[in-house]
Parts: sequence; structure tokens; C-alpha cells
Amino acid sequence: MIQHRAFRVEPWAVRETELHQDLLAQTESVFALSNGHIGLRGNLDEGEPFGLPGTYLSGFYELRPLPYAEAGYGNPESGQTVLNVTNGKLIRLLVVDEPFDIRYGELRSHERVLDLRAGVLRRTAEWVSPTGRAVRVTSTRMVSFTQRAVAAISYEVEPIDDAFPIVIQSELVANESMPQTEADPRAAAALAAPLQSEDYIAIDSRAVLTHKTAASGLRLSAAMGHVIDGPEGTESNCEAFEDMARLTITGDISTGQPLRMVKFLGYSWSAQRSLSAVRDQVGAAQSEAMHRGWDKLLAEQREFLDDFWDRADCEIEGDEELQQAVRFALFHVLQAGARAEQRAIAAKGLTGSGYDGHAFWDTETFVLPLLTYTVPRAAADALKWRHSTLDLARERAQQLGLEGAAFPWRTIRGQECSGYWPAGTAAFHINADIADAVHRYVMATEDDAFDRDVGTELLVETARLWRSLGHHDASGRFRIDGVTGPDEYSAIADNNVYTNLMAQQNLRAAADAAGRHPEVATRLGVDAEEAASWRDAAQSMVIPYDDLRGIHPQAEDFSEHDRWDFQNTSPEQYPLLLHFPYFDLYRKQVVKQADLVLAMFMRPDSFTDEQKMRNFAYYEALTVRDSSLSANTQAVLAAEVGYPELAYDYFAEAALMDLDDLEHNTRDGLHIASLAGAFIAAIAGFGGVRDHRGALSFAPRLPEALSRLVFRLSFRGRRLRIEISHAQARYTLVDGEPLEIEHHGQKLTVDGRPLTRKIPPAPNLTPPKQPPGREPARRRPLR
Amino acid sequence: MIQHRAFRVEPWAVRETELHQDLLAQTESVFALSNGHIGLRGNLDEGEPFGLPGTYLSGFYELRPLPYAEAGYGNPESGQTVLNVTNGKLIRLLVVDEPFDIRYGELRSHERVLDLRAGVLRRTAEWVSPTGRAVRVTSTRMVSFTQRAVAAISYEVEPIDDAFPIVIQSELVANESMPQTEADPRAAAALAAPLQSEDYIAIDSRAVLTHKTAASGLRLSAAMGHVIDGPEGTESNCEAFEDMARLTITGDISTGQPLRMVKFLGYSWSAQRSLSAVRDQVGAAQSEAMHRGWDKLLAEQREFLDDFWDRADCEIEGDEELQQAVRFALFHVLQAGARAEQRAIAAKGLTGSGYDGHAFWDTETFVLPLLTYTVPRAAADALKWRHSTLDLARERAQQLGLEGAAFPWRTIRGQECSGYWPAGTAAFHINADIADAVHRYVMATEDDAFDRDVGTELLVETARLWRSLGHHDASGRFRIDGVTGPDEYSAIADNNVYTNLMAQQNLRAAADAAGRHPEVATRLGVDAEEAASWRDAAQSMVIPYDDLRGIHPQAEDFSEHDRWDFQNTSPEQYPLLLHFPYFDLYRKQVVKQADLVLAMFMRPDSFTDEQKMRNFAYYEALTVRDSSLSANTQAVLAAEVGYPELAYDYFAEAALMDLDDLEHNTRDGLHIASLAGAFIAAIAGFGGVRDHRGALSFAPRLPEALSRLVFRLSFRGRRLRIEISHAQARYTLVDGEPLEIEHHGQKLTVDGRPLTRKIPPAPNLTPPKQPPGREPARRRPLR
Repeated sequence: MIQHRAFRVEPWAVRETELHQDLLAQTESVFALSNGHIGLRGNLDEGEPFGLPGTYLSGFYELRPLPYAEAGYGNPESGQTVLNVTNGKLIRLLVVDEPFDIRYGELRSHERVLDLRAGVLRRTAEWVSPTGRAVRVTSTRMVSFTQRAVAAISYEVEPIDDAFPIVIQSELVANESMPQTEADPRAAAALAAPLQSEDYIAIDSRAVLTHKTAASGLRLSAAMGHVIDGPEGTESNCEAFEDMARLTITGDISTGQPLRMVKFLGYSWSAQRSLSAVRDQVGAAQSEAMHRGWDKLLAEQREFLDDFWDRADCEIEGDEELQQAVRFALFHVLQAGARAEQRAIAAKGLTGSGYDGHAFWDTETFVLPLLTYTVPRAAADALKWRHSTLDLARERAQQLGLEGAAFPWRTIRGQECSGYWPAGTAAFHINADIADAVHRYVMATEDDAFDRDVGTELLVETARLWRSLGHHDASGRFRIDGVTGPDEYSAIADNNVYTNLMAQQNLRAAADAAGRHPEVATRLGVDAEEAASWRDAAQSMVIPYDDLRGIHPQAEDFSEHDRWDFQNTSPEQYPLLLHFPYFDLYRKQVVKQADLVLAMFMRPDSFTDEQKMRNFAYYEALTVRDSSLSANTQAVLAAEVGYPELAYDYFAEAALMDLDDLEHNTRDGLHIASLAGAFIAAIAGFGGVRDHRGALSFAPRLPEALSRLVFRLSFRGRRLRIEISHAQARYTLVDGEPLEIEHHGQKLTVDGRPLTRKIPPAPNLTPPKQPPGREPARRRPLR
Repeated sequence: MIQHRAFRVEPWAVRETELHQDLLAQTESVFALSNGHIGLRGNLDEGEPFGLPGTYLSGFYELRPLPYAEAGYGNPESGQTVLNVTNGKLIRLLVVDEPFDIRYGELRSHERVLDLRAGVLRRTAEWVSPTGRAVRVTSTRMVSFTQRAVAAISYEVEPIDDAFPIVIQSELVANESMPQTEADPRAAAALAAPLQSEDYIAIDSRAVLTHKTAASGLRLSAAMGHVIDGPEGTESNCEAFEDMARLTITGDISTGQPLRMVKFLGYSWSAQRSLSAVRDQVGAAQSEAMHRGWDKLLAEQREFLDDFWDRADCEIEGDEELQQAVRFALFHVLQAGARAEQRAIAAKGLTGSGYDGHAFWDTETFVLPLLTYTVPRAAADALKWRHSTLDLARERAQQLGLEGAAFPWRTIRGQECSGYWPAGTAAFHINADIADAVHRYVMATEDDAFDRDVGTELLVETARLWRSLGHHDASGRFRIDGVTGPDEYSAIADNNVYTNLMAQQNLRAAADAAGRHPEVATRLGVDAEEAASWRDAAQSMVIPYDDLRGIHPQAEDFSEHDRWDFQNTSPEQYPLLLHFPYFDLYRKQVVKQADLVLAMFMRPDSFTDEQKMRNFAYYEALTVRDSSLSANTQAVLAAEVGYPELAYDYFAEAALMDLDDLEHNTRDGLHIASLAGAFIAAIAGFGGVRDHRGALSFAPRLPEALSRLVFRLSFRGRRLRIEISHAQARYTLVDGEPLEIEHHGQKLTVDGRPLTRKIPPAPNLTPPKQPPGREPARRRPLR
């Protein structure tokens, strides 16, 4: 955990003013750059020291065997793991004859800034070599949002009141040696030297390395090209080997006579295309980038981000730290999804190798809502990736003896990679989560082409899964037994409320979609009987309720179980999964992450206000938040049932997850879903936004510390701006046709003129208790 | 499966009159010899061809890593696996210059006989070498019941109407190359060259090899000595190497001038003793055996078995095949347990490496009742082994956050070796099964010393486990949630009836034992409050009942689940676990093996007759018997509720499990618990024996085909003989004080005079149906 804040609080940047070597791995994640296709961890230009070297390409993986102590039918035999690909970030510097290495000599100053509007990482270091040569090194790194296959680095070296020779080595390095990963199940598995050289070329200041993976058979080319601007006499030479290409620049620099270089990187990979095709593609990308030049790339990057902020910015007054955190969150979610383009958006984005680089349900549940309301094209792309894996999901369903499609719990390419089925395959809710994201996207965008070509098939195949997974009991109720809901401290339970409510919506949405697109329905073999059977199952869905306690049990009989002994659980025993067997966690009332509470957010109309209040209190007392996928949902429900201050605490936790390294594993990559969740907590919590599938409602209410909240939404072709203060909310239609909305239950039509409405006073309620020691930190804003 | 019967039907022998090479692995298991300490598979003397070479020592294992695709707290990191130790059975023969190998030349005749009264395996082969030399080879193999560390082989070669030179090589071979094992999870894992040589010696006709395992650090010595009796000029020479010792005998034999040799084998191992200590021990054993000589060993073996049959024989008239099968079963259970002496009795005994040589709950549940009533000392020894592992079980309980002792689901030495916790650690019922075996043994023997020194502590520590595993709910009922019962097609369920009833008995038995032995209770820290809390938990134990269906659900909500689609399950899809995911099995009503039905046998007084009838019918329709641990219990309950013909079918299935290879895996070793279960089915099914913890009752009734059943029981110092015909039962006290028993509900006292009582007529009921295709084979007796 970052004990003292590592970053300065600024509205539009994350600035580290001093290099903390012990925090290197964390800051590499925080300073990671990505466009959703290429990801570069914030490793130092010179490569060392490092926490975890990382260069990733979306969808590029190697296979690794999944071992089992005892075999079981249907267990996947191999898993996919993200690879650290050819490192093009590497720029080594020799000052006279000493390598620039911050561990030696004297580091007079060191600053890194992630500029959220420019979309670059800037670094400035002043260093004195062990023999006393002072030098200023400046670099600016960018992964281009507009040129998907391109990254670039501007690098400058200048002596401070001195003159001396330097050597710069700008490299491509494949199969970097990686640090030993730990035994923590959440840390990713490392693979040794996974890239096999196929080809290497160096010409002038350019080089290309091409490799192939042994097991997954994916081919990768990485290219670099350089523009060098140095004092007279500066010379360069480029050479390539199997796992390394190197441009060596020698020059004599002096104060006012720096050596500057721009490095243009291109990355390309394919599962099918030939060596020459992949190599040519990357060469073309890199040439085009050089042709455009650094300044143009910078300008395009800024333009892209200006547009994004225009559509997505969330302004917070009264807590500067959270203002920064929410923008940081939005920026990284954009980085993860902007150009993923029909590849999976991983839980860590492309910021680290945690979770083996896999995508889970949280992409659909937390990330896609954000993208749907801000960058809808990216949301569509992510769902098109799911659509492209339908054949694999159908195969998996068949293997499991089910109809329709069973999407994988964790994957890169689409195959199930979960090696522990009670918290993997059994978590079938992922299918309803995908359906929910489809349904939300279609309702929020009215994108008919997507609905017809992509969405309907996803809804139909997931509905078929539910229909075959559940059954009608003797009294005609539709049960879904033996599945695992979102809470990973329960498993294999009957009639998980979240799962059943999401499946219910899935079944209905599929019947509706089949009705909207009869030609698609026909092609998929859906007839009236099948659609009716979906509606019938949805109608008869079992939703357990505990009359005695007046609450919804998370799953059938959940509230009959023993409560976890929170009193005798010490702070060091969290997260519980590292200190107690699943056996014990599963059989007791203890909740890792919002499950029933998430159900209340996702299906708000299925609960009365009083049920929400009682359920929320009941689960607050059981929820330990050993997952980063909890605080944001607790924030939303806390706000809804009338605890804005508690919501504020949870919102802060979600937003600061990575900047403050709250789960001690930011080193493995950022918690993209928690970051997305921070935005959701802001708009759905303090803004009270609910999307009733085509109808937006708002119930804004700020916590005491915040004086103003402004956010934007794209919805059905409109762009809305919502500005909230303690007393009132102001709704502005920035663009598009008039739209009917609700404000605290009152219907309004927003058109050309901003509408201002009063906010009813908050009830004065005493919030419920959390398990001892698991209360969210009481938020005290920096102002 | 043995398609045509491989063995001739005889009352006291299992005879194979022809060698089926395709059945070698199965017959090696069937012809295995063991005394519970040493186990020799029925491999051919000359070593090849083989199905699976096997020489085992009880408790001798190597460690192997247990891998997991996803780590979890409490998963054991290494497992124990039985080793094929130094092979002393090997006797090769060269006829002139051709090796005796039944795959070449002509095998004129080949017979193997397992003699159940002599306790030896005899073999006679007449073979003509490829160049036309005819020879008769005769061998008799024995593992001594009276000399625990000793085995011996008498080997004779004689030409048939000819004379020629031969060479015999009698060997000890360590690290034999083993066949590749299959992917079937039930087959054992192979380990390559696990034995590391420490020492080798050859003197005269004797040799000793000493090895140590790399990971488990166990030391093993194997010794051989020979007595040679050949024609004049016979010479021998003995030599030893790291992994091999060899006595070479050369001689010229002719008709009437055979060469005969007796090989005496000694085995010894230790985890602690020094090289010289272990080597000396084995030398001493082997010398003592040679000193005794072959004939004396044979005579002692016979005497041991005569006594056993006197106490344990079960006579069946009307079905010769089952007569043979039951004696075969008794013999092998004796072999597994006779001299195990405080080591585990494995699921396969010492007949094969299946299940890695592990012991499971079925030893206590099926094997120990048989031993308790026939060879009670062996039952006590098996429980003393459990007692000796109490420290490990306490550690495991602590690791799992529980009180008392948590015995391992599968183990050799005592550490948990289960790598799949839902069907391993979660199957806590093993603790109650051990307690049940303790309680039964104490009640059936009145062995006070055992009760005080061994039993009470086992009962107390398992009771503590249950008390901490369950909890009182809001209405005061004691629940045991999230555990797995005997049926492995369900897992992690709440209030499994079998588990709860067995735990209830365990809790009460512990309180009673603490009362009987207050000084032990004090030493263990049991006070009146603790004992009262056990009685209270037992009294409040939740036993779910389904009012709607009028049956006991196997576990809470079980009967709400979807029924397995038996109609659409094809015969090739059994066993289901190899063709369907656990996920699907667990969530549906399908039963691998008796669970609720076993509860009705183990706790007969907890069910009314009508409940037994209805429950039996309900579970018959769901039970597929993919486990060998089911038919025998179904036989008992079928007989009890009034279906003697169905009981007969199930009895036959249990009894013929291995002789007919019904589960297609006898190659990996015998199903010792199923064999024991055959005896239980006979006495508790047709004899109607129930042991009400100190009081024996009988409710005999034979199926139509059987005309007479005689069995013996040892009980509280008495020996009883029970003879049953269709019309009547005759109770004879062979030895001991008069005993009060019940016959079909009527109280009797058996004393010096045999008592004859009429058997009430059987009801005429239509038996319930099994899942289609899973009916037991309709038994048609050979007469």
C-alpha cells in the first residue's frame, strides 16, 4: 500500500515528484499507457530497475497447461496467458562510460507526469553520474489513440553545465527475463522465453523483429524507426539479432546542444497471416507514424482526448483528490477499451499481467456501462468480440450438456480458462451479464444494426442457456440450482437471487429481440414456442425471500447458515481467501463482494424501497470487500437507501483503489472495473442515474463534502450534461432531440433550455454497520 | 470386464484353467497374495508378460506434488502414493537357451489356483519351447500370515520326456519399469525410479537390497535366500548390484530329476531406523523363515486359515458361484487386514496401486464391521492406526479453523492427500465413520483397554469436530452446512441426513465414553459442560424431511432439484463422472452410491418402517451405482423392506465385483470394501443382522434361490453360528456365555442348546424401479 501519497493532487494529471524504488511496480501500473490494442507499462526508459517489465498486445497470448490434482470431466486442459511481448520502450543511455541508472550516482530530481488531457507520460530526470557528470533526461511517451498500431517516444539528453560524449541504445528486446512471480493465486503465471524468433531485419535507423509463440502459434512483429536530432557529428548504427535489435547513437552533447530522438514503434500480430504479411503491416504502421511525425501524433492524441472529455468528464467540487481519481479512472478505462476493437477488455486492461490477462464478467458489468454512456462504439466493439466467440461458447455449452452458449468465466481468446469450476464455470451469471450489456447498449443507443447483427444472437443463445440450466419444479416454479453468484465467498448454491433476476431479464430481452428481428429469429431457429418458453421461465423464476428475517437471502437457505465469526478474525486474516479454506467460506454468511446488493442495482424494480433498505443493512453487516468489485456497488445502494455519507466513503474507496493501492496488488495491473465503478458510483450513486432500458431517471443527492458534481451522458443520440449541487440539479441537453427523464420521481422533458429542479432533503438515518475492521475509511476530503 | 467367466466355480478355490493374456492385469489382482503388510500381485513368476507389476508394503509411499490450476488455502501441496517396491517374486527360467515366456513356443496347459484354505497361489504350466523342449513348471507362492515380514515361493522345473540343461535366475529387482498409466482419474499415478540405492549385498544364495525414497525418506530392505534341490552338478552363484540381485542356478534336468528351489523373501521398512537396523531386521526375518522351512510355513498358514474360516466362514447353498465369491471376498478382506498392524488398510488392500494406495472412509464403514465380527484384533489395529494419526488430524482441523480432529479423506500415512476438496475435505462424514467403527468395536467386543486408551480419544476429538463444524440456528436447531455426504454425485450441501445422523451418534458416543472413562475425559480436558454441549447438539440435530413427497431428502433441498435425465443418458455414458461435469451432477437428483439408504442401515432406529420403504423406493429410482460402495447397502435395505429377490441381485453384484470385473478396473486392484460389503449383504441382508450397540438382532429371510445360509459371528466374547433356511433359523452358541438376541422382533436367549425359530412369510411386494439400464443384473444362480 502507498502509505504516504505518491502522487500530487492535480485536476488533470497524476504527478510523481520523486522516485520511490519500492513503489516501482505500482507506479508502472498507474503510469501505464494503452490504447486498448498496445499496452506499455510505465517502466523506466532504461529498463532498470523495474517492478515488472510489461509490453502487451490485446489478444496476444500463449497457452499453458492447467494441472489438476484430481481430473474432472470438462476441466479445461490449457489456459491462456498474456505475454510480455517485444519491448520497444527500451532506451539505454551511456553518460561518458557510465550507464544512466538511478540506483547509482545521484538522482537530483525525478518527475513523472501522466497527462490526462494530452494522453502522454512525461518524465524529467536530473542525474549525476558516479564520476560527476550531470545530465537532464527528458522523455515523453505515447500510445496513439488514433494510430492503433503505433506508440512513440520522444527522448532528449542534455548536459547540465557540461559537455561530454554519450551513447544512446534504442532497442527492441524479446523474451526479457522476468521476475519470479509469487504464490498468490491472483498473480499471473510467468512463462520463460515464450517467443521464438522467426525473422529479424535492421536497415538504417529501422528494425523489425518477428516472433511466434510455440503453443498458441501466434505471430508478432515489432518495428522501430527513429528520427535523430543531435549535435554535429552524431552518428548512428542499427543492428538486429534474434531477440534484439539495437540502434546505437553516439554524439557529443553540451549544454544547449542536446541530443533528441523520436522513436516510432509499430506492433502487429496475427493468428493466421504470413510472416511477410505481418512484417509488412508493422512496417507500414511505423512508416506512416514517422511520416506523420511526432507533433502531428501529439496533436491528434490531444484532439481525441478533448473529444472524450467533452463526452465523459466528471467534475467534482469539494474533494480534489477524488476529482483527480475519477478522471484517472475515466482515462484508464478509455485506455483499456478505446481501440480494443473486437478483442477482450481484460480485468487489468493492458496495464499488467495480473489474472493472466484474462477478461471476466466485470467487463460487461462495470466497464461497458461506462463506455455505453460515453464511448458507445467501444462498448459495441467489446460485445462484438463476445459475438465473435459464440462458436466457442456454443461448444462449451454442449460440453456441459446445455443448450445455447456458455461464455467462459475467464479467457483471452474465448476458450474457458478457469481451472477451479466452483468459482469459474459454475458462475453462469456471466452469460446474463453479457446479455445485460447487450440490452443496455441497444436500449441506450438504439443501434439497430448492432441489435440485428450482434445483439439478438447473443441474447437468444444466452436465453437458451438459462432455459436449459434451470427447470420447473413440481409447483411450476423455475429454479436455477447449483450455480455461483458474484460473491466468491459462496458457491454452488440454489437460486442465487442475482443470477435468477439477471437470467429473468435475459430471457425476456431475448424474447423481445426475437420479436424485433423475426428474420434473425428464424435464422436462429427461434419459433413462437421457444420464445414463449423463455417468457414462461422468466415469469416463474424463483426469487427466494426469508420471511422470518424480512430479507432476500443471497441464495436459497443462505440466511440459515452460520455467520462468519468476524469478532475473532484479525485484520491480518484479510483477504479471507488467503487464510481460510473455501470450504469454510462457502458454508457461512460472509460476503466477499456485492451480490444481492448488486442485484438491487441491476434490477432496481424487483425490490421495494423497504426491502432495499433492509437488504442493504443485512448485507452491510456481512460484506468484507475482499474484492475490488464491491465498494462501487455499495456506494450506489448506500446513496439510494439514504446514506450519502457512507456512499461517499465507498465511492472514495473505489476511486482510490489504484492511486492508493488499497488491495496491495496494483503492481499486477490496475483494477479497471473498480475504476469504471468509481464513475458509476458517482453518477448512479450521487446522480441517482438509473437506466430503465430506454428511460433515464435521476435521483441526485450529494454528500456533505461535495459542493458540485457535473457529469455527461450520451443516450439515444442525445448528449446530456447534469450538474448537481446540494440544493438543485440542472439538466442540459447539449445535443439531440428532446428527451423525457425523471427527477426524483417527477417526469420532465429536457430540451434546448436547461431545466433546474430542487433536490428533496435527505432523510436523517443512522447507517448500518459493517463487520468490525471492515468499515470503509471515513472520507476526509483534501480541499 | 471378464466377458466369459475366467474362473472355475469351486467352493474353496479360484481356479483359472487357461491363461488369458488380455486378462492378465485383472487376474494379477484376483490372485494377489497379502498378509496386510506385504502384498504381491499375481504376476507371473518370470515377470513377463504383465498387466501391472506389483509388490507393495503397507504404509510405504513416496510423495508427489499435487498441482492446482488455481491455488486455494488448505489444499494439500503433496500427496502420498504407494510404490511398487523391490520385486522378489521374479524367477526367470532358461530352457536350454530360450527364456520361458508364454508368448513364445507352445503353452500346452496353464493353471493357476488361489487356494482359500491353504492360503497359497499354485501354478502349473506345461510349455514347449520354440525349439521343441517340453517342460513342466510348478510354483507355489505364499505371503505368510504368521511371519509378517516373510513371503516364500516354491519353484520346480521338470522336463517332459526329455533331458536338458536349464538356468534359473531368481532375482530382487528395484525400480522396475512400469506401464504408462491412463488418464482415468481413478488410476494411480506412476512414479519413475523412485527408489534410491543405499546398499547391496550378496552372500552364498542370499542377497539384500536396501533403498530409500527421495521425498518421503523411507528406507526399505528386501532380502532373499534360497534352498536348492537339484540333480547332481547343479550349481549356483549369487550377485548383487544397486537395483538388482540375482541368484543364478544352472543344472541338467531330466524326467524324474527336476530342479526344485524354495525362495524365502523378507521385507522390512522404516521411516526412522538406520540402514543397518533395517537391513539386519530383514535378514533376521528371512533367516528365521529359512530356519522354519517351507513345509512349516505352509502348515502354519493352513492353521491360521482354518481358525479364520472357523470364525468367519459363510456357507451358501443354492448358488455355488456366490458361495465361491463370498469366500473369495472373506479371504481378500483377511489378506488386507490381518497383519496391517497399525497401518492403514487401503481401498485396494495391497492388491494394486489404484487410488494411489490410499485408505478412505470405506475401510471403517465396510471393512471394519466384517473384521469386528470375525477378526476383532485386526479391527482394533486399524483403529489404532487412526489413533496414531490424531496429531495430524488435529493439525488439519486447526488449519481448517475447526476444533478436535479432522481425519483425511484419503491418505496412506495420515496427511490429507485429497486434491479436490468438494469430494475430499468436505466429506467430513469420514470422522463419524471412524467414530462409528470405534463405537461398534467397543460395543461388540467390550474391549475396555481399547475403549480407554484408544476409543475414547477418537470419539472425543471427532465429537469436538462436529460441535465446531455445526451451529445452532435461530430456532435452536443444530445444522451442519456445506458438507459432502457419501454420494459423490452431490457435494457441499446443507444437512446431509447421513452425515447429521452419524454426527449425532458420534456426539452421543463421545459423551458416553467420557462418562465411562472420567480420567481420560479429564486428561483430554472434557468437562461436564462440553459433554452436555455434545448431547445438546445431538438432540437438536436437523434431519430434513420432505413432507410433500413423504421422504427424507438426502440433504436439504435435494428433492427440489431437477431429476437427472436418465432417459437420454446412454449406456456408454456411465460412469457419469467420466462424461458429465461435476457441476451438472451435483445440482441434479442422481445418486452415485447409497447415501440416504446407507443412513437407514447405519441408523436403523431413526426411520420408521414406512419411511424406509418410501425412501428406498425413492432412491432406487435415482441411484446409478457408479461406485462399488453401493450394491451391498442396497442389498441390505432391499432385504429389510421386503424385496429379497432384489437384495439377491445386489448381493451378487457386490460379491462378483472383482471375479467378474463389473467396474472394469479390477486391474488396478480389488474393491476390498465391496468384497467386505458382500459379507455384510449376506448377514445383514439375508440374516437381517443389526447391531444395536451391544444388542444383536436378526430378521433372517432368504431369496428363493438360496436354500441355506450359515454364518458365524464373534460378539462380546461369544461365538455364534446362525443357520438359515426358508422356513427357519437356528441359533447356536459355539462358545461363551448365554446371550440375549432378537429374532424378527422376538427376544431369545441363546445358550448351550441350539435354538430354532420359524421365519415369518415374506410380504409379496413389487420392487421399485431403478434408472433405465441401471437395474442390477437379474441373478440366475449356477447350481
